[in-house]
Amino acid sequence: MDGFALHPQLAKDSVLIGHLAGSQLLLMNDARFPWLILVPAHGDLQELHDLTEASFTEVTQGIKQISEKLQRLTDAPKMNIAALGNQVPQLHIHIIARRHDDPAWPGPVWGVGDPLPYSEDEQKVLIETLQEQLLD
Amino acid sequence: MDGFALHPQLAKDSVLIGHLAGSQLLLMNDARFPWLILVPAHGDLQELHDLTEASFTEVTQGIKQISEKLQRLTDAPKMNIAALGNQVPQLHIHIIARRHDDPAWPGPVWGVGDPLPYSEDEQKVLIETLQEQLLD
Repeated sequence: MDGFALHPQLAKDSVLIGHLAGSQLLLMNDARFPWLILVPAHGDLQELHDLTEASFTEVTQGIKQISEKLQRLTDAPKMNIAALGNQVPQLHIHIIARRHDDPAWPGPVWGVGDPLPYSEDEQKVLIETLQEQLLD
Repeated sequence: MDGFALHPQLAKDSVLIGHLAGSQLLLMNDARFPWLILVPAHGDLQELHDLTEASFTEVTQGIKQISEKLQRLTDAPKMNIAALGNQVPQLHIHIIARRHDDPAWPGPVWGVGDPLPYSEDEQKVLIETLQEQLLD
């Protein structure tokens, strides 16, 4: 994990689910959306294309796997996948299950309203479910 | 191109640059952002994870290549890559070069203000440059 440290903003906004595809898998602490973030744990990268060939393949396969499983788990009609990084430069990929009645639909989720933190119990149960369903 | 037809909204908002990675590469007709869209030309797909293994690899390699080359061409400090599809369900991937002085920075570009169409001359020159620089 060559000098990798999670960006403080991501650490503040999310909780660690576990590791896959050479990355940390995080749950955004916002009960309004089933919203995961994959953070490749490779030094100081900013762009998806900064990943080495091998890591790019590993990370994109991880995105595919998480997207498919999270959609199945949430029965969401649409997934949103994005690597933006305009505010937090550390490379991270959003994987978000969208519902037609979520508070941002049909717009993107970023910058919409205020996060609604999970209760401690909700978060604990959800993390366990995600660990069981998403990680091999 | 098994029954593929470009979604009418994408056809209306963009211009074809060319083909790569089994996809159409489009230029959004919005001079405010260097904004490309890659549309895998495979029937009726909605999610990145709906692509077959081979197509997924091909398309993600296409994204990597376009992102890297567009960043080099525009000297942009940040790239935004996203597959959303909340409004246009046909699978399409945004590849956008962001500048710190663009009209949406640091927010996402979707739904911000009105598109600023290229002039006919601007568009012609830009399409030729993109064909030369981005397509093999």
